[in-house]
Amino acid sequence: MSDVLAELAKVLEARKLADPDESYVASLHAKGLNKILEKVGEEATETLLAAKDLANQAESNKAAAKSDLVYETADLWFHTLVMLSHLGLGPEDVLRELARRFDLSGLVEKAARQQHPG
Amino acid sequence: MSDVLAELAKVLEARKLADPDESYVASLHAKGLNKILEKVGEEATETLLAAKDLANQAESNKAAAKSDLVYETADLWFHTLVMLSHLGLGPEDVLRELARRFDLSGLVEKAARQQHPG
Amino acid sequence: MSDVLAELAKVLEARKLADPDESYVASLHAKGLNKILEKVGEEATETLLAAKDLANQAESNKAAAKSDLVYETADLWFHTLVMLSHLGLGPEDVLRELARRFDLSGLVEKAARQQHPG
Amino acid sequence: MSDVLAELAKVLEARKLADPDESYVASLHAKGLNKILEKVGEEATETLLAAKDLANQAESNKAAAKSDLVYETADLWFHTLVMLSHLGLGPEDVLRELARRFDLSGLVEKAARQQHPG
Repeated sequence: MSDVLAELAKVLEARKLADPDESYVASLHAKGLNKILEKVGEEATETLLAAKDLANQAESNKAAAKSDLVYETADLWFHTLVMLSHLGLGPEDVLRELARRFDLSGLVEKAARQQHPG
Repeated sequence: MSDVLAELAKVLEARKLADPDESYVASLHAKGLNKILEKVGEEATETLLAAKDLANQAESNKAAAKSDLVYETADLWFHTLVMLSHLGLGPEDVLRELARRFDLSGLVEKAARQQHPG
Repeated sequence: MSDVLAELAKVLEARKLADPDESYVASLHAKGLNKILEKVGEEATETLLAAKDLANQAESNKAAAKSDLVYETADLWFHTLVMLSHLGLGPEDVLRELARRFDLSGLVEKAARQQHPG
Repeated sequence: MSDVLAELAKVLEARKLADPDESYVASLHAKGLNKILEKVGEEATETLLAAKDLANQAESNKAAAKSDLVYETADLWFHTLVMLSHLGLGPEDVLRELARRFDLSGLVEKAARQQHPG
């Protein structure tokens, strides 16, 4: 799944320039930061509710609730990516910070070399 | 940055089994889902505030505010990863959903082949 | 402003029984707890954003931003009242807890006497 | 319970001037708006979790979960009152807005007369 966030970031940058009537991402940028942050807040709430519903589901019946939680978490990450893009940042900044914290620095170095193979 | 989330997921799974007195991740699992979700909610709020502070910062002075937003977003993603782990899920589930939505399916297939090279 | 919450609670109880097609409150109850909690989360987010926008407004221009914050906070309180009503509670329970914490117990006693003048 | 919010607002205004080392309210004001809004966000999250836990509790065992939800909602309202106070507003502004929406205007007028009996 490795490059999904990087690919998605490219898609998001491209859609920033699209027609707000035709692209959801462009419409979010057109409405401005508050609208984007409202969506981040909404999706955070929906993620919490989906997590509680999964935990309260009987063991035999967790499949749909797992899908729901994955769906809501994807919504949350997606809108944080739009937020980052709106403010001139991208997932690589967040991943670099996570790698730094967890001493996954070999990965960061390697990734940097891949991006700048020169 | 490609494999940071996958590597981080491995670290998180390993720490699930650690001593709660010595590992923050283990202590979150020991305290239970509500504690983990409280952290997700807290970090979502701090991300929103950092985004507003960055937007309100004068252009010449955005560097520190950008770092702050990256830091808070990393906290938010990190705690969603702990949440997923607590409930038997992982970042690959969320990335697969994002890839599906944005028709990045070539990537998903490739990633699946890499994980199961058999 | 004293009895607004008590009066509003009565209105909310009455609308619980209304046609969901004609009453917003009834429609929230019909959609269930998650929908109500999503609204609480949304309004909490909008309150935070309005508070930041007010704080960042020039002194000469705060009137509209103050109205916005009041409006969003009213939305937040309103949806917590619907939540309480959905779960068999009311504002008097929350006010009693606040009175207890701040040793406003004279008020509580007086209020209890007024409600049960017997 | 009628005057609890008005009384509490007076207490909160008085504590604004207290020593931050001795008053929680004063310490929140000293730390600034972001700290206050972080608490609003935290308490909103804890309220949602308490509501879900109450809804998932067996009927015979709801008393403690009801207390928890009341406690968290009181925390949420309390921190929104601190936020309003920090920004030069008070509960009367929010109650007036709620009264206006629900056509409880008789109450508003009466309350205004009581505040300004002249």
